[in-house]
Amino acid sequence: MTQPIKVTIWNEYQHEKRNPKVAEIYPNGIHSAIGDGLGSSFVVRHATLDMPEHGLTEEVLNDTDVLLWWGHLAHGDVDDAIVERVYNRVLRGMGLIVLHSGHFSKIFKKLMGTSCDLKWREANDKERLWVVAPGHPIAEGIGEYIELEAEEMYGEHFDIPQPDELVFVSWFSGGEVFRSGCTYTRGQGKIFYFRPGHETYPTYHNEQIQRVIRNAVEWAKPSTRSYPAYGHAQPLEPLNG
Amino acid sequence: MTQPIKVTIWNEYQHEKRNPKVAEIYPNGIHSAIGDGLGSSFVVRHATLDMPEHGLTEEVLNDTDVLLWWGHLAHGDVDDAIVERVYNRVLRGMGLIVLHSGHFSKIFKKLMGTSCDLKWREANDKERLWVVAPGHPIAEGIGEYIELEAEEMYGEHFDIPQPDELVFVSWFSGGEVFRSGCTYTRGQGKIFYFRPGHETYPTYHNEQIQRVIRNAVEWAKPSTRSYPAYGHAQPLEPLNG
Amino acid sequence: MTQPIKVTIWNEYQHEKRNPKVAEIYPNGIHSAIGDGLGSSFVVRHATLDMPEHGLTEEVLNDTDVLLWWGHLAHGDVDDAIVERVYNRVLRGMGLIVLHSGHFSKIFKKLMGTSCDLKWREANDKERLWVVAPGHPIAEGIGEYIELEAEEMYGEHFDIPQPDELVFVSWFSGGEVFRSGCTYTRGQGKIFYFRPGHETYPTYHNEQIQRVIRNAVEWAKPSTRSYPAYGHAQPLEPLNG
Amino acid sequence: MTQPIKVTIWNEYQHEKRNPKVAEIYPNGIHSAIGDGLGSSFVVRHATLDMPEHGLTEEVLNDTDVLLWWGHLAHGDVDDAIVERVYNRVLRGMGLIVLHSGHFSKIFKKLMGTSCDLKWREANDKERLWVVAPGHPIAEGIGEYIELEAEEMYGEHFDIPQPDELVFVSWFSGGEVFRSGCTYTRGQGKIFYFRPGHETYPTYHNEQIQRVIRNAVEWAKPSTRSYPAYGHAQPLEPLNG
Repeated sequence: MTQPIKVTIWNEYQHEKRNPKVAEIYPNGIHSAIGDGLGSSFVVRHATLDMPEHGLTEEVLNDTDVLLWWGHLAHGDVDDAIVERVYNRVLRGMGLIVLHSGHFSKIFKKLMGTSCDLKWREANDKERLWVVAPGHPIAEGIGEYIELEAEEMYGEHFDIPQPDELVFVSWFSGGEVFRSGCTYTRGQGKIFYFRPGHETYPTYHNEQIQRVIRNAVEWAKPSTRSYPAYGHAQPLEPLNG
Repeated sequence: MTQPIKVTIWNEYQHEKRNPKVAEIYPNGIHSAIGDGLGSSFVVRHATLDMPEHGLTEEVLNDTDVLLWWGHLAHGDVDDAIVERVYNRVLRGMGLIVLHSGHFSKIFKKLMGTSCDLKWREANDKERLWVVAPGHPIAEGIGEYIELEAEEMYGEHFDIPQPDELVFVSWFSGGEVFRSGCTYTRGQGKIFYFRPGHETYPTYHNEQIQRVIRNAVEWAKPSTRSYPAYGHAQPLEPLNG
Repeated sequence: MTQPIKVTIWNEYQHEKRNPKVAEIYPNGIHSAIGDGLGSSFVVRHATLDMPEHGLTEEVLNDTDVLLWWGHLAHGDVDDAIVERVYNRVLRGMGLIVLHSGHFSKIFKKLMGTSCDLKWREANDKERLWVVAPGHPIAEGIGEYIELEAEEMYGEHFDIPQPDELVFVSWFSGGEVFRSGCTYTRGQGKIFYFRPGHETYPTYHNEQIQRVIRNAVEWAKPSTRSYPAYGHAQPLEPLNG
Repeated sequence: MTQPIKVTIWNEYQHEKRNPKVAEIYPNGIHSAIGDGLGSSFVVRHATLDMPEHGLTEEVLNDTDVLLWWGHLAHGDVDDAIVERVYNRVLRGMGLIVLHSGHFSKIFKKLMGTSCDLKWREANDKERLWVVAPGHPIAEGIGEYIELEAEEMYGEHFDIPQPDELVFVSWFSGGEVFRSGCTYTRGQGKIFYFRPGHETYPTYHNEQIQRVIRNAVEWAKPSTRSYPAYGHAQPLEPLNG
């Protein structure tokens, strides 16, 4: 319990290198901004697409309690073997927080079993994320809603399995709604999808967004439970068969 | 509403050809026994592994309301392209009923996003499937439990996402329990996993098991709803942005 | 199956008698408008507050498959004994559809176990009910959303247990969202809460709203299942104890 | 975070005074045994039926983070006003852990909205509580199952709303199963129902049972979130209405 949680922030890190507008908002990459927002109570590591094995070696993943995932342009460039590796770590207990356009990442689609498709629009919609589960630890310290002056719109239908718990629902000024904060468990791993964070807006500098991500990291940390036994099993009681 | 539901029963159809004990119980294949149990109120079609495209052509799937799936030995021999085709049909509304060892089929694992692993034992355990959702249409006409004198044991932990609705929980004489009847929605498609049905037992000749499968087919039939629009969307309200 | 579903529409029937504006929209009462929208495929009965036993005698309830409930001004005038009677019928399988301000009815609060409180505003907000569960039978025949030009606003936080299935989420022009279509099971009874329907708007004359209510009646009809046995039980297996 | 969690253990404390067999197992009351099992990391207070206001004054409840509830003989003797007080505290965030025969307490039935009925037998059944949610914090430190040599049997159907999360399923030697560990959220409060603990068995001296209760207390502690605003609301966006 007294051990700090080990967080790895994965970012494809492509927009920031190509688009000056994004670079201005996130000069050291989206991952650095997210890391700054986490503060000093976690052990934070960064990993990006261009690193060997995308920075997600067996060693790194085995030393990660919670993985954050931001991707958009380059979903198709993520190696299937690395996706499989992350997937297996999640099933064995690593937490996973999928951010914004990560809804279309290979790892999220593989864990959800659905298309994860949605509506979208880049038109400076105002977004208001309403808390619909006020007792949930991921909403701790948040008021009734978080307001973002301008963001990309994501609209329903969002093709995901019904969440275990729905924490946030977004209102957009253009007329749509969206299930913006969704929890899942897959195997022993906890997963949180959190909608906001388009690369052309300073969303990850917003203190309330940072607070939600910190809360989610705390919530998604693994339990220290032994791995269940699968496969052939001896009877525990006498059988007459 | 007055149209009969179109059901396709997929069976790998391998055990019956190789193992005389299985052939004795299911002389025309497990699929035929399941089909007989469905009665005459559905339009029933059979498909097996050895047929071209495993019998699951685009034409067949587009003409299928609910697909039943029994597989065991040959999960690995099912073509990935066919799995993808079934998967896309489920997301667009086709019902899917996965039976017994189908828990390890490619299609079920893909839709669940988990390992779908479990404990098992072939030792003539007595099984008692308790109804835990007595108001659920899949349990219609069933008493408090279904008793099977001898079956293969499947035990927890069953590595699946928490079901949308848990309908049956099994008791086994050897000391285990199992979540034996589980519903899910993926995309627009409804999915029911139903545990019993090992090839060396006459389970699909049991009238109560047949009743549950009939109920599940009724429950899983698609709604006649237009497909949601995904992708870029125009604002529905004026934006100031 | 060929028996028509027996529906009882309960309306407190107070606004229509007191407020000319409401009487103009619903000259024969909200219950009549809802009944007209159900069409001719159900057996429909009306019941109101001022009738003996509020029209909900044992005889009526035992002959009801699905009960609809509209109340607002007079929640406190509903007799506790009648609430208890309805409650017991729901647990034994009668479907219940709670409409709009019925969120604060005694029966809904008793079945939910929460305050069922919410935000509200009567200011002609535009409402757009987005379908978030497009495969659900209650959304059958509905497009991506239902738009109501003017309605009372209900906003989150709506203090309900997390729904079994969330079918609709409302967007309001004034900036709020609301979980507008929620399913529950309590005992053997199915429950659907459906938000729209303020007495000063012609919402129950809207064909899409009528379609949702028809779908919900179909969905909420009881299964023909024997009632579970509770209390003291003999062992089914030999005990060594 | 560094503040210890404040726990109040409520026990009707009747069996221990009347039945020598129970007194031998729990000489200082079931509440004391549960308190001993919690260890020293919580602030623990006891409350019993015979105390003024059953020991659950406004002051005590306002100073309680998590309330444990054991009752059996005397459910009917608990004052409705105290039940209402506990209920309101739960909705505002106090955690509640309901133990064994507490399934029939007024507070649990009020929060569930169902009869909470079940099957039972006092015949020294062996019980095996299987973990079905191995990643859940309430199962932390527990192996695949907890085995109790002899306990009262509780069997399905257990008339509760479908749990938010199902953590344990019990196997009984007499042939039944039971959903033994169930989580709920009501308002801002978290609720855990945990089945074992009949007064004539030394269940609360079992270290694994104690571990589960400790885990549940940690899990059920309130979040520090401001209370949502209900009632009339001004628009957040300009309305044309």
